[in-house]
Amino acid sequence: VRNHWSFAGGDVGPWRVVSLDAVSGAVLPPVARLAVLEGGAAPAGAAWVLRGFTSNVRYASGAELAALAARQAAPGRAEARCAALIPIRKSAAWWALGQDARRAIFEETSHHTAIGLEYLPPVARRLHHSRDLGEPFDFLTWFDYAPAHAAAFEELVRRLRASAEWAYVEREVDIRLERDG
Amino acid sequence: VRNHWSFAGGDVGPWRVVSLDAVSGAVLPPVARLAVLEGGAAPAGAAWVLRGFTSNVRYASGAELAALAARQAAPGRAEARCAALIPIRKSAAWWALGQDARRAIFEETSHHTAIGLEYLPPVARRLHHSRDLGEPFDFLTWFDYAPAHAAAFEELVRRLRASAEWAYVEREVDIRLERDG
Repeated sequence: VRNHWSFAGGDVGPWRVVSLDAVSGAVLPPVARLAVLEGGAAPAGAAWVLRGFTSNVRYASGAELAALAARQAAPGRAEARCAALIPIRKSAAWWALGQDARRAIFEETSHHTAIGLEYLPPVARRLHHSRDLGEPFDFLTWFDYAPAHAAAFEELVRRLRASAEWAYVEREVDIRLERDG
Repeated sequence: VRNHWSFAGGDVGPWRVVSLDAVSGAVLPPVARLAVLEGGAAPAGAAWVLRGFTSNVRYASGAELAALAARQAAPGRAEARCAALIPIRKSAAWWALGQDARRAIFEETSHHTAIGLEYLPPVARRLHHSRDLGEPFDFLTWFDYAPAHAAAFEELVRRLRASAEWAYVEREVDIRLERDG
């Protein structure tokens, strides 16, 4: 299906796993390589496969969409030899909130879009929705960047994890990846 | 997968198809019966199968959720021998809007939640999201009600179709159903 992606951990794939750590909750089994596949397929013999789909924005306003479009960068640039896959699951309390309360926490309080915007275009990201597929995580976010921007990426991650929104994150795994140039 | 539903048109299923009409865009092939299956399965030999999943609310505020919860009715009551399945697809222009503009059209202008609330509990509904599955429709809404409330249901449908939101509906099929008591 168009817009569906699979992230398969195992022995194959262009991405070498540099680290795989739990930030909150249970970790995933360790793997050596990661394959990223569009369309929902997955290689045979993977140790685990996480699935998600890209979709319309759920919180960004028209003005925020315009700001994002002006700085947007798509993952997959030749110089982006570093990547991160960060699967998260939010709590039942988050999902029980109305749209207004979730938007207020996400942006007015936590500045999620605004923070991400500061690191564009060096750090490209693509958000995949997983919860509606019955997956173990709600979201899979893929980031990639050139080695020169590794410190900027660490800062981005640190700022998001310090936000009020992250009080609703009950499981988070942080997978860092590198590929040959 | 939990929260995934299939609607299979063909020769089997508890629901007799009373009418199947296009409101906008292409119609679906005519069928005699409809089966509604939870979990994403579908009977062999169906003429067509539409799939969708229930999910968190995308527009309702906390106050609107509380009002809905106070009057909520779940589909499947014994007296609800009439039903409708109304698949719709919205335009690319709708999906390109920011969350703020979609919310404004959906509720502040079109009063989608407020109108639906007026017909609860007699008319129960369940919304299924289809667009993220690569389906031909974006949403499948299932309604059911007792025969005594058929006129109220017609009024509900008429009011929603007259709203500003419906200018963004580019395909809509209206399938009316009955089952034996």
